[in-house]
Amino acid sequence: MMKQIFINAFIIAMTEGEKPFKGALGVENKIISYVGPVPTDEILHTYDQVIDMDGKAILPGFVNTHGHAAMSLLRGYADDLPLKTWLEEKMWPLEAKFTSEQVRAGTALSVLEMIQSGTTCFLDMYDHMDQVAEVVIESGIRGSLCRGAIGFGSEELRQSKLKEATEFAKTWHQAADGRITTMLSPHSPYTCSPNFIRQFIEKAVELNLPVHTHMSETAAEVQQNVDEYGVRPVEHLRNLGFFDIPSLVAHAVHLTEEEIDILAEYDVKVAHNPGSNLKLGSGIAPIPQMLKKGIRPGLATDGAASNNNLDMLEEIQLAALLHKGVHQDPEAVPADVALRMGTIFGAEALFLEKEIGTLEVGKKADFITFDLSGPHMYPQHDIVSHIVYSASRADIQDVYVDGKAIMLGRKCLTLDEEKIRFEAVKAFEAIAP
Amino acid sequence: MMKQIFINAFIIAMTEGEKPFKGALGVENKIISYVGPVPTDEILHTYDQVIDMDGKAILPGFVNTHGHAAMSLLRGYADDLPLKTWLEEKMWPLEAKFTSEQVRAGTALSVLEMIQSGTTCFLDMYDHMDQVAEVVIESGIRGSLCRGAIGFGSEELRQSKLKEATEFAKTWHQAADGRITTMLSPHSPYTCSPNFIRQFIEKAVELNLPVHTHMSETAAEVQQNVDEYGVRPVEHLRNLGFFDIPSLVAHAVHLTEEEIDILAEYDVKVAHNPGSNLKLGSGIAPIPQMLKKGIRPGLATDGAASNNNLDMLEEIQLAALLHKGVHQDPEAVPADVALRMGTIFGAEALFLEKEIGTLEVGKKADFITFDLSGPHMYPQHDIVSHIVYSASRADIQDVYVDGKAIMLGRKCLTLDEEKIRFEAVKAFEAIAP
Ligand SMILES: [Zn+2]
Ligand SMILES: [Zn+2]
Repeated sequence: MMKQIFINAFIIAMTEGEKPFKGALGVENKIISYVGPVPTDEILHTYDQVIDMDGKAILPGFVNTHGHAAMSLLRGYADDLPLKTWLEEKMWPLEAKFTSEQVRAGTALSVLEMIQSGTTCFLDMYDHMDQVAEVVIESGIRGSLCRGAIGFGSEELRQSKLKEATEFAKTWHQAADGRITTMLSPHSPYTCSPNFIRQFIEKAVELNLPVHTHMSETAAEVQQNVDEYGVRPVEHLRNLGFFDIPSLVAHAVHLTEEEIDILAEYDVKVAHNPGSNLKLGSGIAPIPQMLKKGIRPGLATDGAASNNNLDMLEEIQLAALLHKGVHQDPEAVPADVALRMGTIFGAEALFLEKEIGTLEVGKKADFITFDLSGPHMYPQHDIVSHIVYSASRADIQDVYVDGKAIMLGRKCLTLDEEKIRFEAVKAFEAIAP
Repeated sequence: MMKQIFINAFIIAMTEGEKPFKGALGVENKIISYVGPVPTDEILHTYDQVIDMDGKAILPGFVNTHGHAAMSLLRGYADDLPLKTWLEEKMWPLEAKFTSEQVRAGTALSVLEMIQSGTTCFLDMYDHMDQVAEVVIESGIRGSLCRGAIGFGSEELRQSKLKEATEFAKTWHQAADGRITTMLSPHSPYTCSPNFIRQFIEKAVELNLPVHTHMSETAAEVQQNVDEYGVRPVEHLRNLGFFDIPSLVAHAVHLTEEEIDILAEYDVKVAHNPGSNLKLGSGIAPIPQMLKKGIRPGLATDGAASNNNLDMLEEIQLAALLHKGVHQDPEAVPADVALRMGTIFGAEALFLEKEIGTLEVGKKADFITFDLSGPHMYPQHDIVSHIVYSASRADIQDVYVDGKAIMLGRKCLTLDEEKIRFEAVKAFEAIAP
């Protein structure tokens, strides 16, 4: 059992009310065993390894609460188009050709990128999820995985998807020593019938797992829900019982005050995707209103085809800037709240807040380090402000998951970069139109 | 006279209608002498140096059209406050203590950061401008400089500022072999009387230089203009004759359709500061409407205290994303337009479009290179899309100004990083409250 201690770093623990301080982080086996001032030499001698982190900050790894990793294969393939054209003419025809080869290659490309930008845990909703689980195992990252199911086509097809989703969730939950957890995920109210959604909820109850879906991303989708079911998506999902169990909705852009109240009342978790919502022209989620009502939204990138990267620090920066401008209120979403959204609120959104999301004794040792020496990080008045408003992903030096280094000095230790690039190009070319 | 050619790069020339192509860029002395396919070996032998840029893109350096470089000393010193409190209680009291030492140290810190993020030309409006000019000379960057004048206080003080601004503009225009140009700059209609603004315009006419000012950044400032002068800022400045000569306004956030028409009619240049406008809660400039009416806004960071970095790539990304979300239109500000805003539109805003802003034979050799090997740049469907939506400043490898390398492989060749950090801290501590 390895005992490590990282000393002389700015510790940004993200625990409520705790200010950054210069101190130390101890790790024993996979677990955080110490957070506090740098101990005496006597105590330091009890550690197997003492690592000097002078000039660096240590904080919890970023938690990406919604995405489709394999879609990085389509990054930049089609941009700046109306959503319907983009989806129906560009994304879906190519995604229909995805086999396990494309999912493996795209997911590996994405996971490499996520590690390089400080993400230690990501949610993935896609198809061929065994491939995603394999990449999680190989890369050392943490993943909350679900087989997303679109309910179009025959009843037989739907039932095979439900079965696959359930089997996947059952088989992989708590795999890789707990690094993999699972959810059940009907794609959305506009692609799944009420009955199909109900079947997912039943399976989730049976397996004691959370449910996840897309909700109220665009105004058109909300209108379609009203036309079809007579109610807006929030009421629709509540009526189906979706919110009676632990549930996470992605987007939540178009909400009324009443809908925000319902989400708060049922403690529904929200994945806020500012970059993707902007890029697709979907709109801007009412985050300040959610925060006021006690909702603690996590952040997410969505798939790389609509972002176009998987950089959680950019989402944190966007979350901190965007709502200030939209509401003409410089106090909307302060820097430390945005950083919370990218860490502990994200952990809560994935129902993993007891294990990750802050630097606290007993939690899993998922953390990242920032180099503070760039000119953009000077003078060092406020490290949290600098990370949120001024840093870039390239300032992230090291990434640890379960106490294991998966990136050191910006070099990913678990994945072969060149092979991943080669296979991504090959996998795309195999399906290129 | 040195002849260099950069071959096998993706050339993103930013000339109208030109698509990126794999080719070569030739530089002779300080001037671009060739843009096109990789020449034959015979021709390559006529160059003193042939540099293989395989796997990289070459594009015009970014042009930052509005800022106050010295304010980086106050980066992160006060965030997330109402504008009035931030300015009056935090910024102004400390800025009042700035001497040439603070301006030198803050400007050097900023210029280092700007070079590292691909900016080859920046506008600076501040005080102690001789110091800024010295940093421009030393660093090798290009600068459009003006002594900004706030018109508060005694008539004597105002006249001394006007004189200083005029002397500075006259002395330094076309210095450093043309790398320095100058403008005349009354700070804003809310800090300068009509008479004081008119005096600046007169001096600008006399010296044949452009004028620059802050305009319509906040709703409160527009209202104040109406209360005081009976008209909104655009009409106010037009009545003063500000738009009768080459003029650049920063912000232009709160505009009516009629005001946009006036700006278009007078060919007024606009510096769009999306990051700063969001962070201070000022609002969101009507960029799609301006583009529709033929205004070609440049991009800018404003000072680092309100951004909090000087990363033009972030402004380009914000410009591409923000307006899509606000207008719920995924076709608002396409990627290539956002990149134009950061390069050629910026050059136009500084009245330097004949010299910089595109890669064209005869223009000055101000260019930057992007490494394309990161996982976030794969697959390479669309290089412009990747640079705008997916890249980070750390992908920028080399920076050339006037054909001279000022950064190679991310190492700034002209400035001493460690000394700059040290002096920034020292300069802040000397004025710290
Ligand atoms: Zn999604
Ligand atoms: Zn300004």
